[in-house]
Amino acid sequence: MATVKMPSIAEAEKNPAVKAVFDDIRATRKSDFINNIWRGLSNSPELMKRIWEQIKTVMAKPSSIDPLTKEMIYIAVSTANSCSYCVHSHMAAARAKGMTDEQQAELMAIIGLAAQTNHLVTAMQIPLDPEFEVKS
Amino acid sequence: MATVKMPSIAEAEKNPAVKAVFDDIRATRKSDFINNIWRGLSNSPELMKRIWEQIKTVMAKPSSIDPLTKEMIYIAVSTANSCSYCVHSHMAAARAKGMTDEQQAELMAIIGLAAQTNHLVTAMQIPLDPEFEVKS
Amino acid sequence: MATVKMPSIAEAEKNPAVKAVFDDIRATRKSDFINNIWRGLSNSPELMKRIWEQIKTVMAKPSSIDPLTKEMIYIAVSTANSCSYCVHSHMAAARAKGMTDEQQAELMAIIGLAAQTNHLVTAMQIPLDPEFEVKS
Amino acid sequence: MATVKMPSIAEAEKNPAVKAVFDDIRATRKSDFINNIWRGLSNSPELMKRIWEQIKTVMAKPSSIDPLTKEMIYIAVSTANSCSYCVHSHMAAARAKGMTDEQQAELMAIIGLAAQTNHLVTAMQIPLDPEFEVKS
Amino acid sequence: MATVKMPSIAEAEKNPAVKAVFDDIRATRKSDFINNIWRGLSNSPELMKRIWEQIKTVMAKPSSIDPLTKEMIYIAVSTANSCSYCVHSHMAAARAKGMTDEQQAELMAIIGLAAQTNHLVTAMQIPLDPEFEVKS
Amino acid sequence: MATVKMPSIAEAEKNPAVKAVFDDIRATRKSDFINNIWRGLSNSPELMKRIWEQIKTVMAKPSSIDPLTKEMIYIAVSTANSCSYCVHSHMAAARAKGMTDEQQAELMAIIGLAAQTNHLVTAMQIPLDPEFEVKS
Repeated sequence: MATVKMPSIAEAEKNPAVKAVFDDIRATRKSDFINNIWRGLSNSPELMKRIWEQIKTVMAKPSSIDPLTKEMIYIAVSTANSCSYCVHSHMAAARAKGMTDEQQAELMAIIGLAAQTNHLVTAMQIPLDPEFEVKS
Repeated sequence: MATVKMPSIAEAEKNPAVKAVFDDIRATRKSDFINNIWRGLSNSPELMKRIWEQIKTVMAKPSSIDPLTKEMIYIAVSTANSCSYCVHSHMAAARAKGMTDEQQAELMAIIGLAAQTNHLVTAMQIPLDPEFEVKS
Repeated sequence: MATVKMPSIAEAEKNPAVKAVFDDIRATRKSDFINNIWRGLSNSPELMKRIWEQIKTVMAKPSSIDPLTKEMIYIAVSTANSCSYCVHSHMAAARAKGMTDEQQAELMAIIGLAAQTNHLVTAMQIPLDPEFEVKS
Repeated sequence: MATVKMPSIAEAEKNPAVKAVFDDIRATRKSDFINNIWRGLSNSPELMKRIWEQIKTVMAKPSSIDPLTKEMIYIAVSTANSCSYCVHSHMAAARAKGMTDEQQAELMAIIGLAAQTNHLVTAMQIPLDPEFEVKS
Repeated sequence: MATVKMPSIAEAEKNPAVKAVFDDIRATRKSDFINNIWRGLSNSPELMKRIWEQIKTVMAKPSSIDPLTKEMIYIAVSTANSCSYCVHSHMAAARAKGMTDEQQAELMAIIGLAAQTNHLVTAMQIPLDPEFEVKS
Repeated sequence: MATVKMPSIAEAEKNPAVKAVFDDIRATRKSDFINNIWRGLSNSPELMKRIWEQIKTVMAKPSSIDPLTKEMIYIAVSTANSCSYCVHSHMAAARAKGMTDEQQAELMAIIGLAAQTNHLVTAMQIPLDPEFEVKS
């Protein structure tokens, strides 16, 4: 159960500001499916618009990182932040963008290994190597 | 300062089990540079070997995810886990594997956006869409 | 399902030490409702008493931060720590203390934005400005 | 040390897109001080603009949550996300907006207590009370 | 619902590499019960083998930390990382290894207290005492 | 640098409420060393007293978990919460209570392994086994 009202899509779209975003989501994704996060965010059309515009710019626009890689990075962050819904929705998005079973298994192996060394490094409090410095 | 002894490379290599791993790191990476995490892990040669073997298998072996993408996923996890050393070392590795300034900026944009939606979803406790279900 | 026994309120109150705390919760909150965390904590009356005394002192006593603000800070921490139950219970408490839909939407916007800049700062490893120093 | 170039303010402002944001920061905050996060973000003017516009909208615009409360919520998230720089910069902002020593001490008490109950609830895996349900 | 296929034990064991690990789990644990994580990991027999070998070495082999203490440390990490399944499975393992109700209550008290001081220290940004330095 | 004033021990002890706690710390620990967290907490004697009383009860009183195990659990939580100061101070405490190099290496191996499986489980969203249920 949610901590905010979860209006149906039809109910939420009665607000034109919400409908405009929903329509843009449908057009951008070439799909009629509007997932639950948008029903929750529709309680605050202004916040919903800001979030959608960022997702459209960062995730949907062609750029120097390919769409599947973007989803895998998103999954990595969502896993480390323990966001169950986000892991589910971006795993689905990654599969829709062509992630194979082999790639999913490798993604999980990388995430698990990173978490292991993150915790080892924090437990040992390893000091920085000067070699990592960025030259200005 | 570390919570474990940080022997010099020369000192650590006196242990043949440590030297064997260091030599494999050098050969695999085609570089003489051994960064600080390995000095810390050399206190426990058995643990060091397990970590290195995983890194070699997961990060260094050709596979279905390209080497730069692997580093970006690693950075994403390390950022969400607040591991300063890990962020530094894998940013350096990503640059060494060809990450451009533009890709680095995009990587950060994805990480930041994911964190934002992770927290929004958790605050709203959005319920799962049945559409995300994996068919067995 | 819980990892500890979840006695009913009636069963838990058979222990006088538990009943004393439950009675104080009811009196302080002017409500008969005892939520599930207290059933779980009743397995360890000593720990339960310490937690309740802190909540009573920090959250229920009039002080320099108003009661609704306290709940919003609590929600912020609980969200970042991915505690679903805590997000739910303190959202309910915030609404009971007068949080409007508009304030809830703003609270979520702040939490999401903070998470985004937290992750950006960690990814960039921004050095501290000396201007932030506290003068002793 | 940072993982991105940290240009001086003067150097960064040579880019008109950066200068426009810096000027808006100065005008909005009525201060000439541009803190380090903006130097880091100036490597990606587009991302910097998106972050600034969110901060301006969420944190700087008069709204239903007062400015000091906003900073305290920001500090709460930043603490739970272990972002040292963010804790410093928003503690400084909170003091600039009038946070007293007493309020700071209470803020810390709330953050610490929330973290404690977050972890207790997660360790006990307390089930949700139906009373917390939001009525649609 | 999972983000990976969850084959039944019988189905998963048709792969001899999976069966070999399952058999070793049964022999090591002297029990026929194979819990769900192994069904999920069986999608990637190589990753499953690496995880099992680590668990066998770290958790199941007699060593300088007793088996119950190992489980309590595991629970502590899993709680702080908000892994509900992991908290459940290692609580069950700890009880199977003799954890009493009193010890469980104390474990939770330590976890909660550590979380509280972790957050207080991060909010205050306490500088390191030189006395904590490890002598090389 | 800290976000709160860091008075010297002598300065802090001018407040009798602070001195009383400091004296109890010295007597309980049989040592004159007062580490930095107490200087920071002395800004709020009431909060400091609550924290000390919990530490004294949970960590210093003989109980069903031995003192070294308690410190290792504390380190595990502090590592997962990325609290550098806490990792340092409790590693020092663990060594003072007899933690050997071998035990420290094992502690780190357990923490790292737990983090790895925590992240794998979250990425796979493994459903709970009914076998883990606690019988009421």
